[in-house]
This record gives sequence, C-alpha cells and structure tokens, in this order.
Amino acid sequence: MKKTLLSGMRPTGPMHLGHLLGALANWTQLQEKYDCYYMVADWHALMSEYADPSAMPDCIHEMVADWIASGVDPKKAVIFRQSDVKEHLELYMILSLIVPLPWLERCPTYKEQLREVKGRDLTTYGFLGYPVLQAADIILYKAAAVPIGIDQVPHLELTREIVRRFNGMYKEIFPEPEALLTKVPKLLGADRRKMSKSYKNFIALGETPDVIGKKVLSMITDPERIKLSDKGHPDICNVFSYYKVFKPDMEGEVKDWCENAKLGCIDCKKRLSEALAEYLKPFCKKRQDLLKDRGYIDKILKQGAEKASSVTSKTIGEVYKAMGIR
Amino acid sequence: MKKTLLSGMRPTGPMHLGHLLGALANWTQLQEKYDCYYMVADWHALMSEYADPSAMPDCIHEMVADWIASGVDPKKAVIFRQSDVKEHLELYMILSLIVPLPWLERCPTYKEQLREVKGRDLTTYGFLGYPVLQAADIILYKAAAVPIGIDQVPHLELTREIVRRFNGMYKEIFPEPEALLTKVPKLLGADRRKMSKSYKNFIALGETPDVIGKKVLSMITDPERIKLSDKGHPDICNVFSYYKVFKPDMEGEVKDWCENAKLGCIDCKKRLSEALAEYLKPFCKKRQDLLKDRGYIDKILKQGAEKASSVTSKTIGEVYKAMGIR
Repeated sequence: MKKTLLSGMRPTGPMHLGHLLGALANWTQLQEKYDCYYMVADWHALMSEYADPSAMPDCIHEMVADWIASGVDPKKAVIFRQSDVKEHLELYMILSLIVPLPWLERCPTYKEQLREVKGRDLTTYGFLGYPVLQAADIILYKAAAVPIGIDQVPHLELTREIVRRFNGMYKEIFPEPEALLTKVPKLLGADRRKMSKSYKNFIALGETPDVIGKKVLSMITDPERIKLSDKGHPDICNVFSYYKVFKPDMEGEVKDWCENAKLGCIDCKKRLSEALAEYLKPFCKKRQDLLKDRGYIDKILKQGAEKASSVTSKTIGEVYKAMGIR
Repeated sequence: MKKTLLSGMRPTGPMHLGHLLGALANWTQLQEKYDCYYMVADWHALMSEYADPSAMPDCIHEMVADWIASGVDPKKAVIFRQSDVKEHLELYMILSLIVPLPWLERCPTYKEQLREVKGRDLTTYGFLGYPVLQAADIILYKAAAVPIGIDQVPHLELTREIVRRFNGMYKEIFPEPEALLTKVPKLLGADRRKMSKSYKNFIALGETPDVIGKKVLSMITDPERIKLSDKGHPDICNVFSYYKVFKPDMEGEVKDWCENAKLGCIDCKKRLSEALAEYLKPFCKKRQDLLKDRGYIDKILKQGAEKASSVTSKTIGEVYKAMGIR
C-alpha cells in the first residue's frame, strides 16, 4: 500500500521558475509513489495577507492551473483547497486546546518571521497558531511523509511533538510524520538573491516572452566583464547557471562564448531568453488552455475537496471518539 | 422587529440553583422579548476541560434538559450546540487573523483565570483565544444584546473592539453588541461562598430530596447561635436567605423562630429542605421526563443547529464577500 503524503502552497502570488524546478517537479514525481494530497493553503495565506486578501480567488485559480500545467495530475493526486474541508479548522481547534503557548512563542521560524517580514503586522493571534494549523493539515490525512526544505524542519518537529502529546493524552491515533527533504536545483533571482515572491526578483510561469526577455536582461552577470573583449567567469554568472538548468546541452558552448570573449553578455542573455521561452512554451500553452475554462479548475477543487473530506471526516470521528466528546 | 440576543453556557458540570434563579430565569423572560439564541458552548468548555472531556456528552444532555425544564422554550428560542454550527470556527479563524496578540494577553479576566483556576493547565494556545471565539459566537448572529454579569464586561468590550477592527478593515457588517446587565438574586453556596461548580458548594437541579436535605444541613448559619435557647440573627444566616428566595411567604415566621429562639437550626433547615424539594418538584418531574427520551433533546439540538446555520451561513457569506476571498 502506498504511503500518504501531504504538501501545500500558499496562494499569495504568481508561481515562478523556482517553484517549477523545486516543489512542482518534486510533486510530479511524488504522485507516482505516494497517495498525495496537494493543498491550496488559503487559511495559511490569510494569516499573513489578511489586510488585503481580495486577489486570492484569482491567485488560487492560477496557482492550480500552474500545478496541473507543470505535471501534477488530478487523477493521481488529490488537489484541494484547505478552507473547503471543514475538518482542518476542527482539528486545528482540538490541537489548539493541548498546545502550550511557549511551544509556539519559542518556535525559531516564528521569531524569525516577526523580525524579517516587512509591511505586514504578524503579531496577531492567528499567525501565532500557524504551526498548529500546519500540524492539523498533516495529521488529518495521517500523512507519513511531508516534503520540506531544510528551513521547515523546526515546524515539522513541532508537528511531531503535538502528535506525541495528543497520542499520549487520548489515544495512539496519529503517526509521527517524517520529513522528506527535497533537493532543489539552485536558481537565484535576477538580483542573485533567493528567487522569491517577496523579493520581486522572479520569472513567473505565465510570463510572456517579452517580459522574460526584459527580466533576463536585468540579470547580474560577471561584474568584471565590462567590455565585449573582457574575458568572463561563467561560474559566478547567474545567466550561466540558468543555461545549466534550462539548456544543459549548451553548457560547453556558452562557457566558450564567455571565457574566450566570443559573445557579449547582452547577446548571451538574448539567447537565454529564447531558450527559456522555448522551454516554457508547452507549459504556457497548457496553462493558457486551463485558464480558459474557469469551470474546470473549480471542478478539480470540488472533487478534491470531496476526496479529502472522505478521509478527514473519518479521522475527526476517531479524534472525537478518542476524547469521548461525540 | 425583535432584536437578536445570544447567550451560552459551558457544559462543564451539573446546573444548580444559582443557574435556575440567575441565567435561566433571565433566559425564560428574555425569550419573550428577543430573538434568542441559547448556545451549548462546548468548544469553550473544551478550552478548560480538554484533559478529560469524556463526561461532556451526558453533561450537554442534562444541561439542555435543565434549560427546558426551567422554562426555556425551544419553540421560542433557538437552542443549539456550538460545535454543530461550523461557521463558529470559520469566523473564529477570520477574527484570529486580525486580533493583535496583546489584546488577548492583557485581558484582565485572562490573567485572573491563569492565576485563580487550579488543577487545569490553561497556558495553552486555545485558551488564549477564548474571547476571540466568544466574539465570533456573538457577531455571527449580529446579536444586539448579550446578557452578562458585571464580571464579563471586559470580554464584551473586547468583542466590541474586534467588531470595530473588522468593520474598519473590511466593511461595516457587524453591529457592536450591547451588554444587558443581569440582576441575579444573591444565593450563596452552603459554605457562604459564591455558588459555583468549582467550589462544589452547590445544590444541583437534579438533586433528590435526600441529597437536598444533607446539603441544607451542612449550611453555615449564625455562628453565635450555639444552643437552641440562643437568640439568632437571621440577616447573617444563609438558611434564612434561602427562605427569602424560595419561600418568601414564610419570611416573617422564620425570623420569629430564629430571633426569639422558638425553633432550632436543625429543624429550621429540615423545613427549608422540604420547601426546597417542593419548589423543585415540578421542575424535577419535567427534567426526568425530558431525560427519559434521549432522542428528544437530540432532536431539539439538531433543529436548533439548522436554524442557527441558516443565519450563520448568511453572515459568513457576507464576511467572505467583504474580504473578497470567496
């Protein structure tokens, strides 16, 4: 029997190349080996975007289109929206009852986000509960595995601690989920920082070739190569790292252009833009087709919520029985 | 048009004389003047009783029987269980998003309960959110009035503050509920402290005449009246205060017994026990009849949840629309 896996994304902005190569490539593989639940984490998104969440419905729609266009298959994985499945809030409430406040206040990622995230007031009651809701999401499906990056390990450790507390207080219902650490090809944003929605340095998946061209042109290259005749150092050049990922068969050629000053950075970038647009073409086509039919995505989410609910209603029944409250 | 009113009780133990003369007498009057929603606050109960909540289902059943036996009329008021109406958790989540943590941490009743309540660990994430859930309960029905005791005024003030924040951030949806301060006849427990479940000094509504007799016998009277021939001071005697409430026509007679040493305390208590049992008789009869038919209470709660949901689903729709998220 396949093991169960849960993962989710917050609908807070456009999906970009980092997602495509990272989480989505990973999800597409995982759906072959696991019973996968891929969740639109809209409650989690609201925890930071509550001040102006009106873009969320469109954002959800496009995000799910991006998932499917990239290869996530609604026939293989359950794609659903968190707020469509009422048991997420029910188990969130139950776990809230037993989670000591200091576990949350001392969570390193919590303190980091209060410090780092600008332009949003995160000192709310809801945001403090972020990891409690995450725990509820995971264990509602009794997920054995959760694909995460190394930075999310403390959150998952908190989930495991909450599981132990529940199991100890009431009954051994929940397995402790294991981290499935994901290796992601390193792809920096145009400014060489981590590609991220908040840094606005990303190339979105729905980008037109024109915009791709502009964004690639703005990429930082080797600062020592000023004139065309200067020899460059491809290993420190962001553009070169994109070639390695999206056009690996050109790696040797591009290296030669740069190291032997055969082609200038602008031309090198133009060719990368073309390669990137070419790479994204089938994806963009599929994405556009999906977005044409709003009803299709709605149907996927509706069916996903039904499948998810058939699991979660069973789990919450076990929870209430273990506690003796229903 | 009638104004809407919400009130609730936590199913954490038996209902007692204090409830009958206080909240329930009040509820029975209010149902004539308001559109009343009377809520079994089971999520709130779980916030303190999470460690062993298995008595809750029976407790809920008996509590609702007590409500109805005392005159609360399911044809006039909507009687429902909080956890049966899913929008309570949804609005709780929404309000959690916008409530600053310090509002909760600084709430005087919160700090008081952390200090006063023994035998329960209340330093949990859930318990901190108590007033947020209370706000959600009230405003889901757009209640104009909330009958409360003076000690609950800070909680209601917090609800009003949350309402102002929501209305200001999104849209003017919710009215600020007003406190309906309830006057309750003073009825102390057997030990002369406030009659309370936690002090175990109460006379429960389902008590047999035998147990009533024992509990009345244990009541503190005038400590200066030691022998039968000692003259007593009825105004400081707890037993006398019960006569005034439950057998007011005997007030003069009992005063005479005591002040002129005509009857000893034990006999005086025996007669009070009889009077009390007599007073409770019709109530106990009705209560027993109600408890015989488990299905009846279940049906009341089911119908109540349906009526409540028809209001709450409309309100939550307005909330999502105001925020632009559905």
